[in-house]
Amino acid sequence: MERQPYLRLQFENASGRSLSTERLVSTIKSQLKNHAAYQGCRMPPVRALAHELGISKNTVQTVYEELCAQGILESRDRTGIFVKTENSSKHLLESAEVPKPKLKPLLDSVSFSPKPSEKLWLSSVFVDPRILPVEKLTACFRSILKYPGIPDFHDPLGFKPLREKIASRLRDRGIDVTEDEVITTSGSQQALDLVCRSLSTKKVATENPSYYLGRRLFEMNGIETVGLPIDPFVGIDETEWRRLLSKERPGLTYLTTSYQNPNGYSYTSAEISKIVSWAQEFEFGILEDDWGSEMLSGSEFKPGLRALGGSNVLYMNSFTKKVLPSLRVGYLVANKDTVETFRMAKRVSTIAVPGIIEAALHEFLDRGYYDTHLKHTQEELDIRYEHCLSLLREKMPEDIRFTTSGGGPVLWIEVPKRINLELLRERLEKRDVSIALSDAAYFGKPLNHGFKIGYAYLNTSEMEQALSILSVEFGKFA
Amino acid sequence: MERQPYLRLQFENASGRSLSTERLVSTIKSQLKNHAAYQGCRMPPVRALAHELGISKNTVQTVYEELCAQGILESRDRTGIFVKTENSSKHLLESAEVPKPKLKPLLDSVSFSPKPSEKLWLSSVFVDPRILPVEKLTACFRSILKYPGIPDFHDPLGFKPLREKIASRLRDRGIDVTEDEVITTSGSQQALDLVCRSLSTKKVATENPSYYLGRRLFEMNGIETVGLPIDPFVGIDETEWRRLLSKERPGLTYLTTSYQNPNGYSYTSAEISKIVSWAQEFEFGILEDDWGSEMLSGSEFKPGLRALGGSNVLYMNSFTKKVLPSLRVGYLVANKDTVETFRMAKRVSTIAVPGIIEAALHEFLDRGYYDTHLKHTQEELDIRYEHCLSLLREKMPEDIRFTTSGGGPVLWIEVPKRINLELLRERLEKRDVSIALSDAAYFGKPLNHGFKIGYAYLNTSEMEQALSILSVEFGKFA
Repeated sequence: MERQPYLRLQFENASGRSLSTERLVSTIKSQLKNHAAYQGCRMPPVRALAHELGISKNTVQTVYEELCAQGILESRDRTGIFVKTENSSKHLLESAEVPKPKLKPLLDSVSFSPKPSEKLWLSSVFVDPRILPVEKLTACFRSILKYPGIPDFHDPLGFKPLREKIASRLRDRGIDVTEDEVITTSGSQQALDLVCRSLSTKKVATENPSYYLGRRLFEMNGIETVGLPIDPFVGIDETEWRRLLSKERPGLTYLTTSYQNPNGYSYTSAEISKIVSWAQEFEFGILEDDWGSEMLSGSEFKPGLRALGGSNVLYMNSFTKKVLPSLRVGYLVANKDTVETFRMAKRVSTIAVPGIIEAALHEFLDRGYYDTHLKHTQEELDIRYEHCLSLLREKMPEDIRFTTSGGGPVLWIEVPKRINLELLRERLEKRDVSIALSDAAYFGKPLNHGFKIGYAYLNTSEMEQALSILSVEFGKFA
Repeated sequence: MERQPYLRLQFENASGRSLSTERLVSTIKSQLKNHAAYQGCRMPPVRALAHELGISKNTVQTVYEELCAQGILESRDRTGIFVKTENSSKHLLESAEVPKPKLKPLLDSVSFSPKPSEKLWLSSVFVDPRILPVEKLTACFRSILKYPGIPDFHDPLGFKPLREKIASRLRDRGIDVTEDEVITTSGSQQALDLVCRSLSTKKVATENPSYYLGRRLFEMNGIETVGLPIDPFVGIDETEWRRLLSKERPGLTYLTTSYQNPNGYSYTSAEISKIVSWAQEFEFGILEDDWGSEMLSGSEFKPGLRALGGSNVLYMNSFTKKVLPSLRVGYLVANKDTVETFRMAKRVSTIAVPGIIEAALHEFLDRGYYDTHLKHTQEELDIRYEHCLSLLREKMPEDIRFTTSGGGPVLWIEVPKRINLELLRERLEKRDVSIALSDAAYFGKPLNHGFKIGYAYLNTSEMEQALSILSVEFGKFA
């Protein structure tokens, strides 16, 4: 009974001063007369109306009694005061169906399953959660909860001590940046989104194959995408890149410098220099996605696009894959000319990253846990990478090729055309090995005929099991 | 020394198999010959190259020795192997400045300061953090950290048990919804963003004055906004709304049902019914922002647009203001026809809300802390509201008007034209009272001449102090 909805009335011309009984009676009366739909509806409870208007309950009581006496309201035992009606069962306003909102067509609806249960997930780009630093991260959360506690409010660029740590780490890697040019984000996906929604250009070039959710994001923002072909075995197709860049004139290129998803490729130093010189020649901006840096063997010593192309190069990175996927913290690095645009884009889209998350991550960096964790992960993943390579060399037929990506979470395995990939995927699925095909990552027809192998997700014995099954299934296509 | 960048080379035509010494020598040689810029650069350390290619360090050592012997590489004591050059100080690739990214013009750059230090913040829309449930929330975080721990991965719609709680609470308030129609978001701002980026319509109507960051979000997405005038003292201008809706034909209306920001207005039942009927007549969708519900006195008993307009009405709400601003959790409620579009929009923009945040908030709801907290807050804010009203009635000159918003965090105070608001603001600032003018919230010339008073943020003695100063300053304009 208590939760039954009541009418909300309007007391026109109120100045905020207390209303007299007479004024209240007349204002309620005229509203009820003007709205036939109010018949049978419940009036506000006495205490609710008294509170709202800042007047005494007695005054409201007197007003209701007067309106009952005039036959406009009626009291029903234990349920309240109602607008008088012939139809005593009605106590709600009529409802009606409003039109559907007009939405863009859904481009696709790829289901997301980071963790297929009970399967060996052979194509994961994630690092095995079993080697992620959950305990140390938990200790950092506990410490922040104890002191200084969950922050009330937030800095729109992100927690300043965290931005300082990030800037200082970047300077160690040859990127000259201050904390005021760093914006924390909801993972690298939001870093990409902030750039995407701030662009005035309507055309962006990215790798073919591309990072799938990145390309979709651009397209959902009405930005045309151009694919620049990369073969994970030979690198970029210089002639084709030059032709496309000069013909299409994209306003921005979005490039993943290390361990590209899906094909695991990392740019050579010559390619990075080439891209910087093309940017000058064809006048495009650069967004460097450096998620693979800091991750694995030796990768941190390689200067990337931001280091070589100066501060106009937008740079993004993330702690998500390296620390914990559900943490959702990344960052975007701009410069003094551009940072304000991205701050405003962040403000209108999500306001801020949750304060406790930023504070706990800062603690994690400050205690040196991040560096220890990277070292530990690097050692473990180096073992997995080398083990995976030897298994492939040992078990795969001679006509199967694979890349030596040298780090990162994945390498690319290329199979002869006689092997139908979809059929292979189905057969493996039946034997509890999941592979992901990357068709959706390509612009048009896939340039490669294979799939990624994620050696960072499976441990050595799981990998051995998965590759043995794969090798048997390959054999069936002979 | 260890951190000095090195060249990343490419080993074309590799099949993943071990490379012979001869093949390595020739492939490195041809690359160095093709790239004059490599002169003076550092070669990959032996162990890094051996690891990358999955070969022995001895092989790499032999290759480097051979290339040194051929005069292509040179060894420098304790710093590594370098590409031979006349200029021995060079060890980095040349850098160059790439063009600026092409960005949209910055619409504005309003600074954000939720907490002006040392000032009485009279126009805050926030609830006083001193009465927010930080201790209980901390207990929930601790409990989740202990068991089951920080989640690894995430559900793209949001943590399912949390969505179930949200759906069940909505059903209690007459909104028929299942957990599969609920999407968690980074505060209500992201709920608005998911709708904004999914709309195919290019025109949206919202209140005038509008929620500032909402309107900016639409405009930054290329959506034209139309302002529907609301006077906080008299409600909506029915004639003008009808004229604008029939003339402009917006595809969507974005309306805040209770305690609108900035003017504190809540729609009457008659207005809500009217809007539903206009939606049918003029064929527009509705997005209801219900952030004020559950917040304060009696508000939860009033059926809103989603309850009366059916499941096509998009509905958004947030825990941010009510639990803790830095928590950043809100939600969007769609229906079976539309939910997939918003899930994809969330996925490309931020992927997910951090898992630990969703789990801790669920715990907070599950333990009944949220209901206890709402009850406690309601009692406290009812006291503050009534106290604020009596102070205004007592201290303000007769020609000052104010609304009786009946709940929510703010009411509107309207002052005579002879009082210059900007001058008032400056004078108050000098006396350590901050007010926010809402000029930017209006479409064109402000429809009111006043500002909001946030009685939820200041306690009764702070409010008394602030209003005393305000009253003195008003006197100076006499």
